[in-house]
Amino acid sequence: MTPVAREHTASSLRLRRLGIDTYQEPVVYMAADCPVCRSEGWSAQARVLASFGGRSVIATLNVVTGSLLAPDEVSLSDAAWTILGATEGDHVAASHPRPVTSLALVRKKLYGERLAAGDFTAIVSDIVAGRYSAIELTAFVTACAGGRLDFGETVALTRAMTDGGDRLRWTHPVVVDKHSVGGLPGNRTTMLVVPIVTAAGLVMPKTSSRAITSPAGTADAMETVAPVALDLSGMRRVVEREGGCIVWGGAARLSPADDAIIRIERPLNLDSEGQLVASVLSKKAAAGSTHVVIDMPVGPTAKVRSSDAARTLGAILTAVGREIGLTVEVCEGDGSQPVGRGIGPALEARDVLTVLRGEHAAPADLRNRALALAGRVIEVGRGLVAGAGQSIARDLLDSGSALRKFEAICQAQGGMREPPVASHQYAVESASDGVLIAIDNRRLALAAKLAGAPAAKSAGMELHVRLGELVAAGQPLFTLHAESPGELEYALAYVAGNSDMLLVGAQAR
Amino acid sequence: MTPVAREHTASSLRLRRLGIDTYQEPVVYMAADCPVCRSEGWSAQARVLASFGGRSVIATLNVVTGSLLAPDEVSLSDAAWTILGATEGDHVAASHPRPVTSLALVRKKLYGERLAAGDFTAIVSDIVAGRYSAIELTAFVTACAGGRLDFGETVALTRAMTDGGDRLRWTHPVVVDKHSVGGLPGNRTTMLVVPIVTAAGLVMPKTSSRAITSPAGTADAMETVAPVALDLSGMRRVVEREGGCIVWGGAARLSPADDAIIRIERPLNLDSEGQLVASVLSKKAAAGSTHVVIDMPVGPTAKVRSSDAARTLGAILTAVGREIGLTVEVCEGDGSQPVGRGIGPALEARDVLTVLRGEHAAPADLRNRALALAGRVIEVGRGLVAGAGQSIARDLLDSGSALRKFEAICQAQGGMREPPVASHQYAVESASDGVLIAIDNRRLALAAKLAGAPAAKSAGMELHVRLGELVAAGQPLFTLHAESPGELEYALAYVAGNSDMLLVGAQAR
Repeated sequence: MTPVAREHTASSLRLRRLGIDTYQEPVVYMAADCPVCRSEGWSAQARVLASFGGRSVIATLNVVTGSLLAPDEVSLSDAAWTILGATEGDHVAASHPRPVTSLALVRKKLYGERLAAGDFTAIVSDIVAGRYSAIELTAFVTACAGGRLDFGETVALTRAMTDGGDRLRWTHPVVVDKHSVGGLPGNRTTMLVVPIVTAAGLVMPKTSSRAITSPAGTADAMETVAPVALDLSGMRRVVEREGGCIVWGGAARLSPADDAIIRIERPLNLDSEGQLVASVLSKKAAAGSTHVVIDMPVGPTAKVRSSDAARTLGAILTAVGREIGLTVEVCEGDGSQPVGRGIGPALEARDVLTVLRGEHAAPADLRNRALALAGRVIEVGRGLVAGAGQSIARDLLDSGSALRKFEAICQAQGGMREPPVASHQYAVESASDGVLIAIDNRRLALAAKLAGAPAAKSAGMELHVRLGELVAAGQPLFTLHAESPGELEYALAYVAGNSDMLLVGAQAR
Repeated sequence: MTPVAREHTASSLRLRRLGIDTYQEPVVYMAADCPVCRSEGWSAQARVLASFGGRSVIATLNVVTGSLLAPDEVSLSDAAWTILGATEGDHVAASHPRPVTSLALVRKKLYGERLAAGDFTAIVSDIVAGRYSAIELTAFVTACAGGRLDFGETVALTRAMTDGGDRLRWTHPVVVDKHSVGGLPGNRTTMLVVPIVTAAGLVMPKTSSRAITSPAGTADAMETVAPVALDLSGMRRVVEREGGCIVWGGAARLSPADDAIIRIERPLNLDSEGQLVASVLSKKAAAGSTHVVIDMPVGPTAKVRSSDAARTLGAILTAVGREIGLTVEVCEGDGSQPVGRGIGPALEARDVLTVLRGEHAAPADLRNRALALAGRVIEVGRGLVAGAGQSIARDLLDSGSALRKFEAICQAQGGMREPPVASHQYAVESASDGVLIAIDNRRLALAAKLAGAPAAKSAGMELHVRLGELVAAGQPLFTLHAESPGELEYALAYVAGNSDMLLVGAQAR
């Protein structure tokens, strides 16, 4: 055909801030009468490549039919804005993204074919580059769910995810780590395990997440006691001085594909063994760990529902770990009720401090669980026989060594403080005499969130009873904590409509 | 627990128009400092139930971090706004939607289990009610892809989708219909088949779609000749008078689940046999058809790539049709190149008119394909032997009966007009002598869209050559049509970078 002397160039639009948070899904906004939009043949939901100063992001188009944008203006959702690093008034180029070729591999998997190692690398690399829309990511996640990844594919996905982001390197031959599968409210053992095992001389550079759907993540709870938003060099400095740290993992890009995949799996409530294994182990491998202890709570409202399921999952975690050079130990634990008393960032941190300080109020279950896990970490890290670690851990806790190490880590991270106390509290009482026969972890967590956790650091709830305990009518079951009267009322209204989330049954005689 | 005398009530916010088109995905906008947002514990991407005056919509939350909304204001995407039927200043209630229980069934399917008929009814009913997010819809679509629906499940899904919307009832015992699988550009046979078979005395109340990703849908092409946006009573009136109609299907809610599912399948480019069958047959059954002829173009860049695949798909369509009381006939056809000359609403309508009017310029392939399909429709509708219908169809076309019927249908729909002609045209010439050996339908369609189709009715392209024809250097291959110089330039720039979409090869000697 006759060549036309013109390139298919991207067109440039002036950036204007609207300030819209769409979470991690990047969105680009253009006016309906925008000439670029029209000439590109774009309509709402089109995928658009927005570029500025050498950076680019693929975003989903939302068309402004009102007067928010002029025809020559463009806007971006907050996440896309951050990725581009542009400022208002900058000129952003909008063009068609090149086709995402790895989607053909996702279709192949959907049609039941096996993927090769290189296929996973291609898919993960496109996911990390932000080339997958939420719909495309969901297709990949569901194509791999329901046991459709065999062992070799699980290993390949784990390797691809590990290599898809930053990798931390440590000079120590043994670097230990721990991970909890599936959120039990209040299961805040990391803040105890790190000081105990580092006091035992091991190296444990722990990165933790903030809450995504739970009332508190480890990073949220730790933040009520010490700064956690350290960059990589800050983290390295703390670890070199104290042997360990408890920081927020967001500063490092450790297995960023995992963050994107989790965003899809959570709302779907999908239990995909292969992806769970790849998710957990890729983060640990990327963090430079060599030995990992996995806490696996088992219970009817926990992520792992039976001991059988725990053993299967544990076997896969251990075997995949071996393939990628990671020693993995799985510890099953009770997942029938929350751990400790507090649910919410500050309330969970207070539980941790009572254990470290050996206070009378220290919750025994949190203490025992932390000692069991720390014991296992010490055993695998030092190559001791099973059972030898726990007494070492207990001595370090009871002697105050763990408390001093925790204080030192907090100081190294920027200074220690006491967790805040909520200004509004309300005790919810039992309506009848009986025995506490069931606890719905999921609904308890929601009540704590309605009270303001995790955004309101001191909000949440304090549980006063445990499964199997006798309760009398009028006895407080739990106390709601909130930072404002409105949030307290909101949580109370939910509690009133869900009085069976703590089930008090007839007393056995 | 002590009951609290308060309901978990929805909170009310003042509606403000922002004017943002997110296509079919409903979005609700609230300010970051909105007290409802805070007390509900919502963050971006939360699912929110917005209600007003007895109507409600489940929408995805986008949080306004800028100054677009006051704390007590709420906004909605254009689609959500339309569903609620509210006006600016109305008070809209925002609350937690009840859990979507059918998602457990989607997970069941993802884990490889078989779904029962009632399971599909529950899923389709939630999809139609707008309770599925794009992520959840994608999980359902992918769970059913790759041959994971067996025959009984395909029948059950088809029935559930048919029953999930409006159903048209006709008094005639035989109601015929046709459907084309997979868009070949220019395959505008419906506008010929309807007048021919209704001239033959059959009843064919045809509802067609507008383009979603193609340069023109049948409704877009027909609209350049006559009004198509008739409501159900208008459509009924036309069919009673003329025996048939060619209207836009958007006024009736025929298998609305199909519209939602297609929105997910298209960007994924997923070929799911079970869902394709359910999609096609549920629309036809809901439209009250009894006999359906399916046009199935086969070719390397068509939806169905081989004759084998066509036969398998045809067998499933016929068998599922039998189960739900629909007589289905499949016609394989050539899918290697566009049909007719025009690509774009007005250009395709012009091709149709030349055939109806018996003009010298009438494209033979469009005429022959329409006669073959109309012949089959007449045979199945009247119970004639194979082959008997085509000569009846030819007589009706050549005698002018079909033209008169087409004009009568147009008049009944609101009046006939001639399709518009584009003000800007540019002929693209062959760079070399040779034979046209390949046509990339997909890229041709994109060039027509860049020229402005389907929004610009007269835009698109006119093809001057067919596969296997000799071409000389400098001979026009196709002419681009546009309504503005900018759009013409844009399409030309694309064409310049994709000169191999029409492949002229060395001439065989």
